[in-house]
Amino acid sequence: MHYKPGLHILATFNTPDSAKLNASAGSRIFFDDIVNKYALQKVGEVYHDFEGGGFTAVVCLTESHLSIHTWPEYSLATFDVFLSNFRQENDDKVRQIFDDVLKFYEGTTLQISEIKR
Amino acid sequence: MHYKPGLHILATFNTPDSAKLNASAGSRIFFDDIVNKYALQKVGEVYHDFEGGGFTAVVCLTESHLSIHTWPEYSLATFDVFLSNFRQENDDKVRQIFDDVLKFYEGTTLQISEIKR
Repeated sequence: MHYKPGLHILATFNTPDSAKLNASAGSRIFFDDIVNKYALQKVGEVYHDFEGGGFTAVVCLTESHLSIHTWPEYSLATFDVFLSNFRQENDDKVRQIFDDVLKFYEGTTLQISEIKR
Repeated sequence: MHYKPGLHILATFNTPDSAKLNASAGSRIFFDDIVNKYALQKVGEVYHDFEGGGFTAVVCLTESHLSIHTWPEYSLATFDVFLSNFRQENDDKVRQIFDDVLKFYEGTTLQISEIKR
């Protein structure tokens, strides 16, 4: 057996709804929904809200991780989703999750990289 | 003020010392040392050890995050370091941290991407 690289999407997006970038509570519910919808296995998470607004969050998965760092003052966020392909091919899930993220935040992609790793 | 993109290094490396990839305890000490050495601000972390060996870890920082997912059975790991440039220019720190990581794991880079985001 060889290591099977997974897909990592890294994106920066902006949004007209910067309220969603201000505090993490809504995003926490959203990411829990994503974990359930795509049958991912969460093994831990960090949500940290900054005093002046904005938050940083990482959801650690057996499959790898999701992360978001928000900048409400610039109406933008950097988002990552990386799922390994250990037990099954997850590349489609990675793309679908990113689509869901754009829908949730009403985001427009400013920059995107797709890396197989 | 405009958003100042930070540097994100994503790498896959292998190592002759796969014991370091087997359990997270040694890496946890190492990452705490990194946080201190580079005066980063940790806001949370997740370390998850898999039953069959290997671990996944994310250190969440006010500056963004570090992550590692290890595959001792393949003697390899995927590592990320992403530091924003909000309060200061951190690109050099990102590169130095990646050098420290390679030294600690005796790693040889198999794949690397540098993304300004």
